[in-house]
Amino acid sequence: MEKNFDIISFGEMMLRLSPPGKQRFSRSGSFEKQAGGSELNIAAGVAALGLNTAIISRMPVHDVSQFIMNEIRALGVADDYIIYDKNPDTRLGIYYYESGASPRKPSIIYDRKGSAINRIKFDEIPPEAYGSTRLFHTSGITLALGEATRSAAQNMMKRFKEAGAILSFDVNYRANLWSEDEARRTIEKVLPLLDILFISEETTRKMFRKTGELHDIMKSYCSDYGIPVVATTERKVIGASQHSFSSTIYSSKDDRFYNEHAYEKIEVVDRIGSGDAYVAGVLFGMLKYTDLQKALEFGNAMAAVKSTIPGDLIVTSFGEIERIIKAHQGEQQSEMNR
Amino acid sequence: MEKNFDIISFGEMMLRLSPPGKQRFSRSGSFEKQAGGSELNIAAGVAALGLNTAIISRMPVHDVSQFIMNEIRALGVADDYIIYDKNPDTRLGIYYYESGASPRKPSIIYDRKGSAINRIKFDEIPPEAYGSTRLFHTSGITLALGEATRSAAQNMMKRFKEAGAILSFDVNYRANLWSEDEARRTIEKVLPLLDILFISEETTRKMFRKTGELHDIMKSYCSDYGIPVVATTERKVIGASQHSFSSTIYSSKDDRFYNEHAYEKIEVVDRIGSGDAYVAGVLFGMLKYTDLQKALEFGNAMAAVKSTIPGDLIVTSFGEIERIIKAHQGEQQSEMNR
Amino acid sequence: MEKNFDIISFGEMMLRLSPPGKQRFSRSGSFEKQAGGSELNIAAGVAALGLNTAIISRMPVHDVSQFIMNEIRALGVADDYIIYDKNPDTRLGIYYYESGASPRKPSIIYDRKGSAINRIKFDEIPPEAYGSTRLFHTSGITLALGEATRSAAQNMMKRFKEAGAILSFDVNYRANLWSEDEARRTIEKVLPLLDILFISEETTRKMFRKTGELHDIMKSYCSDYGIPVVATTERKVIGASQHSFSSTIYSSKDDRFYNEHAYEKIEVVDRIGSGDAYVAGVLFGMLKYTDLQKALEFGNAMAAVKSTIPGDLIVTSFGEIERIIKAHQGEQQSEMNR
Amino acid sequence: MEKNFDIISFGEMMLRLSPPGKQRFSRSGSFEKQAGGSELNIAAGVAALGLNTAIISRMPVHDVSQFIMNEIRALGVADDYIIYDKNPDTRLGIYYYESGASPRKPSIIYDRKGSAINRIKFDEIPPEAYGSTRLFHTSGITLALGEATRSAAQNMMKRFKEAGAILSFDVNYRANLWSEDEARRTIEKVLPLLDILFISEETTRKMFRKTGELHDIMKSYCSDYGIPVVATTERKVIGASQHSFSSTIYSSKDDRFYNEHAYEKIEVVDRIGSGDAYVAGVLFGMLKYTDLQKALEFGNAMAAVKSTIPGDLIVTSFGEIERIIKAHQGEQQSEMNR
Amino acid sequence: MEKNFDIISFGEMMLRLSPPGKQRFSRSGSFEKQAGGSELNIAAGVAALGLNTAIISRMPVHDVSQFIMNEIRALGVADDYIIYDKNPDTRLGIYYYESGASPRKPSIIYDRKGSAINRIKFDEIPPEAYGSTRLFHTSGITLALGEATRSAAQNMMKRFKEAGAILSFDVNYRANLWSEDEARRTIEKVLPLLDILFISEETTRKMFRKTGELHDIMKSYCSDYGIPVVATTERKVIGASQHSFSSTIYSSKDDRFYNEHAYEKIEVVDRIGSGDAYVAGVLFGMLKYTDLQKALEFGNAMAAVKSTIPGDLIVTSFGEIERIIKAHQGEQQSEMNR
Amino acid sequence: MEKNFDIISFGEMMLRLSPPGKQRFSRSGSFEKQAGGSELNIAAGVAALGLNTAIISRMPVHDVSQFIMNEIRALGVADDYIIYDKNPDTRLGIYYYESGASPRKPSIIYDRKGSAINRIKFDEIPPEAYGSTRLFHTSGITLALGEATRSAAQNMMKRFKEAGAILSFDVNYRANLWSEDEARRTIEKVLPLLDILFISEETTRKMFRKTGELHDIMKSYCSDYGIPVVATTERKVIGASQHSFSSTIYSSKDDRFYNEHAYEKIEVVDRIGSGDAYVAGVLFGMLKYTDLQKALEFGNAMAAVKSTIPGDLIVTSFGEIERIIKAHQGEQQSEMNR
Repeated sequence: MEKNFDIISFGEMMLRLSPPGKQRFSRSGSFEKQAGGSELNIAAGVAALGLNTAIISRMPVHDVSQFIMNEIRALGVADDYIIYDKNPDTRLGIYYYESGASPRKPSIIYDRKGSAINRIKFDEIPPEAYGSTRLFHTSGITLALGEATRSAAQNMMKRFKEAGAILSFDVNYRANLWSEDEARRTIEKVLPLLDILFISEETTRKMFRKTGELHDIMKSYCSDYGIPVVATTERKVIGASQHSFSSTIYSSKDDRFYNEHAYEKIEVVDRIGSGDAYVAGVLFGMLKYTDLQKALEFGNAMAAVKSTIPGDLIVTSFGEIERIIKAHQGEQQSEMNR
Repeated sequence: MEKNFDIISFGEMMLRLSPPGKQRFSRSGSFEKQAGGSELNIAAGVAALGLNTAIISRMPVHDVSQFIMNEIRALGVADDYIIYDKNPDTRLGIYYYESGASPRKPSIIYDRKGSAINRIKFDEIPPEAYGSTRLFHTSGITLALGEATRSAAQNMMKRFKEAGAILSFDVNYRANLWSEDEARRTIEKVLPLLDILFISEETTRKMFRKTGELHDIMKSYCSDYGIPVVATTERKVIGASQHSFSSTIYSSKDDRFYNEHAYEKIEVVDRIGSGDAYVAGVLFGMLKYTDLQKALEFGNAMAAVKSTIPGDLIVTSFGEIERIIKAHQGEQQSEMNR
Repeated sequence: MEKNFDIISFGEMMLRLSPPGKQRFSRSGSFEKQAGGSELNIAAGVAALGLNTAIISRMPVHDVSQFIMNEIRALGVADDYIIYDKNPDTRLGIYYYESGASPRKPSIIYDRKGSAINRIKFDEIPPEAYGSTRLFHTSGITLALGEATRSAAQNMMKRFKEAGAILSFDVNYRANLWSEDEARRTIEKVLPLLDILFISEETTRKMFRKTGELHDIMKSYCSDYGIPVVATTERKVIGASQHSFSSTIYSSKDDRFYNEHAYEKIEVVDRIGSGDAYVAGVLFGMLKYTDLQKALEFGNAMAAVKSTIPGDLIVTSFGEIERIIKAHQGEQQSEMNR
Repeated sequence: MEKNFDIISFGEMMLRLSPPGKQRFSRSGSFEKQAGGSELNIAAGVAALGLNTAIISRMPVHDVSQFIMNEIRALGVADDYIIYDKNPDTRLGIYYYESGASPRKPSIIYDRKGSAINRIKFDEIPPEAYGSTRLFHTSGITLALGEATRSAAQNMMKRFKEAGAILSFDVNYRANLWSEDEARRTIEKVLPLLDILFISEETTRKMFRKTGELHDIMKSYCSDYGIPVVATTERKVIGASQHSFSSTIYSSKDDRFYNEHAYEKIEVVDRIGSGDAYVAGVLFGMLKYTDLQKALEFGNAMAAVKSTIPGDLIVTSFGEIERIIKAHQGEQQSEMNR
Repeated sequence: MEKNFDIISFGEMMLRLSPPGKQRFSRSGSFEKQAGGSELNIAAGVAALGLNTAIISRMPVHDVSQFIMNEIRALGVADDYIIYDKNPDTRLGIYYYESGASPRKPSIIYDRKGSAINRIKFDEIPPEAYGSTRLFHTSGITLALGEATRSAAQNMMKRFKEAGAILSFDVNYRANLWSEDEARRTIEKVLPLLDILFISEETTRKMFRKTGELHDIMKSYCSDYGIPVVATTERKVIGASQHSFSSTIYSSKDDRFYNEHAYEKIEVVDRIGSGDAYVAGVLFGMLKYTDLQKALEFGNAMAAVKSTIPGDLIVTSFGEIERIIKAHQGEQQSEMNR
Repeated sequence: MEKNFDIISFGEMMLRLSPPGKQRFSRSGSFEKQAGGSELNIAAGVAALGLNTAIISRMPVHDVSQFIMNEIRALGVADDYIIYDKNPDTRLGIYYYESGASPRKPSIIYDRKGSAINRIKFDEIPPEAYGSTRLFHTSGITLALGEATRSAAQNMMKRFKEAGAILSFDVNYRANLWSEDEARRTIEKVLPLLDILFISEETTRKMFRKTGELHDIMKSYCSDYGIPVVATTERKVIGASQHSFSSTIYSSKDDRFYNEHAYEKIEVVDRIGSGDAYVAGVLFGMLKYTDLQKALEFGNAMAAVKSTIPGDLIVTSFGEIERIIKAHQGEQQSEMNR
């Protein structure tokens, strides 16, 4: 049976406010205004590549919130499962982002307490959502926000699983939201449900206290929790404006590690959302090709391209990513088509 | 004995975010970023005219909050009595403002719940503040924010009174903050302390249920609560871009009403803060000249000029306001000095 | 049976390029970039009020064209029936718009020859479109573009009619696209199909050579062509920045004229698209309330509000238009809600 | 014999710096950057209408000065007679301009002391200039700048006169440059040379202490100094954003006054340079049509249009001005051509 | 006999539209607006260095087209030989340009079909043009546009040759305009006329199917077609923001190759037009110094500097290029003069 | 006894005007507007780190000058000792700054002749200033401006010394202000007064004709003039957008050289003011810690951070600089805190 959506994600959608260019929070006269949020970034990334996606979230009903709604529709993410909070005291989560220039680091100030998603109740989720997608994705941020989102997310994961969806989860540890201990205890409960886990090496060593070779650690998630696929990324920060990016995927079914040479000399315009673009690329590749090598290639290319685009949300197309993968694999291309 | 400040005000300082020009909340790609808040507007207005002012407020410690701090210093408002809230969960109050164009009205979305000032405690106020000013001003907004600000404001009014300061209060009713009943009950308690009361005709009729001639109503505040001076303003909205403005002041001591002909055909660039600029002009005039006619003239001119300036905060000088008062009184002036 | 859409329109979607503010074509260093086109404006206007709309059009496949696609989705217009032209030589129609300031008039330069819609073939239209809507709208511009659009539009009108849709048509005469004679001969052929006709008084007198009282002329379209409803608007240009707007609707069934007092002193920010917003408001009102007085009120309010918003496309909400209608009808409202 | 230029003017070219929109000098974060100067404005205005013009001026040799040079060439003013000052200490004259919004007035700060033109020497002027033009124009500003420009201008007027050029002069009194007494004594010396004099009623009454009817005063310049043509303008300032404009020209040869009804409700975008645009229109009309009524009509239309355009310099075309004259004379025109 | 111009070029002048900064076509809210076109870039580059240049082109008569005209005059390119196309259906060629950030490439969308130059007729060219210049330049783009430009260009080359002008030609192959086969067949016909040929190594190998050492290939153009001077460039793309650039010139008369070490670490702001700036530098050097080493040095420096400047058109001066050449040759210079 | 200020500097405050981004002086349509001046930069830098600072300067009284005053207050520099020049002919010094992109260099045009500070008289300085600070700083620029500033500065240095202030001096040689000979003769007179001298290696070798090892030269200033502390910086210009920065401090009392490894790969956003930020960091470190190693670390970090911030004036905080020092010393930090 045909599903309406390839991917549904669940998480907070926020207003991102950034000083233009290299200006500073404390002196700029204006903010650039964008939509953001890890799970939204992923839904938008997969939509940019041509699949159908939706997001489950909870939003205030006012015109700044409407800006976010317009943005997600512009980017092709369906708003069918948005829950509207008409309470006049509800608020839209905000984060302020200032870009860096070495040795000055990028900087983030979160102002998301009390936002609409924090009052979500599991029974608000439209039941028809569960059967409507091939894959469901959420992240550790959603679990960290508070009891309401945590409980909803855990219940939703079960329901989507029952309805036959693939479950994807990105640990995405945020130290300003919860402690490593609380995170680990919470996340361990959902690991056994997962079909694919995204986790950074740093988190695996610090939060999960894993030691030894990275490859062995990746395998251990499969053996300990029965997760079929584990993906981890490596970003090297040469400077605030230059990164390199690579990743590794392990499949327990094939007992095989997938990787390719890193994207070097990425010209970083906006660092935020590149990890989410990676997840989007991998999920797209898995759904489209059921080939983890392809998935990894799309993930890496998406992460690299996102880094070059202002805002949280990747703006690209299947054709562009394909050309970038080919160029990365050595195909001769002119510097500019004309 | 010489006081350090002519005026100290107490209230919330907020970040104001506005779409450029006539753009809309839901579509603009950027926000203009400004400092605002009724009591700040007043302190800045009086400082622009050349007196010494400070504000008592409570602020988070981060770089967007620092933007507000930089703005107030730029405008000449002293930051000596700012209380810093180092709690990482504290937040900076925000309001979104969209300008109008007839028949489309200007629009405001407040997001100020849980901001730093809501945790203020009376004993945080530096005791040296009380003796350091000739006049203390606050408004109904501060009383409305919550129990913490209300209690602090009420205690501060008493302490400033005891220390010999003139007490000024602007009712400034905001329906989205509290009900008329709660407002009236709360404000009635502070009325007996006041030396000057600012109240609109609409509020006086609706919240205080006064009826009859405006002049009689104004007098009744003096007779009922012993307030020596009552000021009320009249704004006519010809269109979102054209207002007229006038006001009346009543002094019970002289039993006299002060007024002048209205400012007509004000070209409205930004409507916000013109009421606060009026208060600033009146307080300046009272302190500088102890002449209520002068005070009213400064108040009206300040309100008119503020309407022509982007942002909450008036940017002007004593010389400019003087020239505008003279022109309003019929002095021949060239259209432009050169 | 439930239809997917309330309204489907058919017409060209163009890129609009405008110098910022009051700058001139020949000197500005940048262009503001917007989507536009009469039938798109109508679909977007009806969507803003909360109904489901789609547009049938034909678009090149490149990233500037994608900008238009993103814009329409952001505004809630479905892209289900867009036909993509993969020919590399196809182009996106453009128009340049410069705003005016009296006595300088606004100015338009069209560059739409050879755009993708000019190659449309009737059989490209997805057949499922015909049964999917309650109302179909197109305009004289579409008939004027060329033989391809004319033929497609005429065939589509028949097919939509057969499928039970209400047919709406706006004469929208553009002298730079065709002569009055050609326009009249072409339009006369479609008039007998219509359920609602929008036509200006000037066009009715010049192109259709009607004489006499406007009310009699309006009636004549009903008697001559069997059109149940005829609507006409009146705009008074006080200056480039100030218009007034009113309209009249005649229903032959009721033999009644509907109208209300004009919107006066509209502060014009962007004049383009206000006629389309009127059509959108009327169609919305007809579909929602089946009450022509309501329809006229929505039409007038939409036209007035559109004039205050930058770009072709109205950005508003049902709630805002309702409040503006009430204020226009004399309901006391505060100048700004807060 | 054919002349290369229709008009050559002589005066200072300055850099104009203005805060965007309605922002203030003391708070805006940027300046708009434009070329300006009364005599340049006139040369550019006449060039916009299609005649050949040049300016004689003196400029530093650096890249900000080059900006001015690029601007004048863009606008069609020839740079053949610019004298370059390679002294590293020379400077480019600047003026800061802030627009107004009633009751706040526009404001100007000049910073032109020591600019390159103040070191001009008469023998620097290329001798071939004198025979190359049909008309020479300068203004009281040039006489006021200092001894160097005054002496050069007086000598140039004689030489151009000898070479057969029409001499045009605009009194353009600037109180911040010189006293009325000094101005009158200096200007009286050049009046006998003139073929056309532009003077405001205010200046004629104050600086030249003329009394009585304006028409009689205008005639007196002709009888006292032998000037064939005198033009005077009337601007009514309804508000900073709305002016009306009319003018009167007297020809002693015909003993006739020329005028037409005023341009009312001009939507003022930038007030600076509208007087210069008037002069440009009149001079264009005189040279093109040798018909003072036409000259006056072009002058008035140019002044009105300039008021609607950002910057000192009018950006228009012969066709636009012709259409505006026709509309002013009552020709029916659509609000917008399309 | 003195010529009016040092260089006349022939080609299309287009409007270039680019999203600001690193924004994308499909999401940016505005376009930067610039003039461009290979032959214009060359005329402007040579003018920036101080020689007299003009362009022969064909333009619509409207205000956006006027923008291009103003730009070329601002940059010192004479408009004497522009042919105006008053047909209301004619259009201005457009191209959209989006800058890249590695691994995302810059991107171009052309929309130049049906533009005014495509209707050019040879006999429209003012005959006085042929004798008025020392050098005539055009490129393969002009030959590729269509039959009209091709035929006009071929005839013009002959006429300029007959009138004694040096003939310069840049192959400038654009795959989206014509096939390699058609290009080769067409260009081979003009090669025998040339005095200097600019061709890239890639084109020489692919379009002309040359093999072997680059030096031998360069010589072969001289021996096969009798071209005295052949120039080829080498650009290394380290990233979208970092290029290196070098070139080689061969003179058959001297049988000598000219070159110098490459410009390394060029900080690329806008890559477009750097090849044209190279041609401009070489042609300037040849005309000014008749020294091919000097010509090559100017070419390389111009290409490097252009890469650092927004827009197609180089903005520089003879003095700046001289200083950059000296610094490139090792002269000690301070990082910044002050 | 407690001093009001930690540092008072003396020097000119200027308006800096810069084209946005990588645009050029001769083509940009706007200027960014900033405050600048070496001694102001230092006062602002030290204030950013948390100490109390003031500047002694002389300013015109108008609204553009007021912009500078607002900026310095925003940045925490006290305006207590500003001397206002009410002469209408006085002016505000300006400098134009254009950023570079290799191989194009940044460029500066000064326009500071005749500015208000050039009329300063020693007896205008408020006498209470001398006892109010722990440290007084000025630079060679102030000595170079003219006789008035030179004489005032020399007298002030003596008076501050007598009042017990530490004397700091930065040679800051500007070839466009004076010759090396005049500079050396003038500066030699003040060297014996100094407690800390900032001088570049280039200046020491060229202006002071020192030869040999840098370390020996640094020592020689101590032995020859009795200066306790000498600091010198080394900037390597890898490209206009990439610098490295290090420095050395010598203390004669300890006979010790202080240094640390260089900041490499600094991403340069705005190069101006980084030398001043270094001085600010060193002076802060000396006053706060009386530890020259700490002082050097703060100096280097401040110089590196300033390079990443638009404008002359560093915008940072003690916390940020501390984190950057720790990261530079190898402390593991995440790329971004969240």
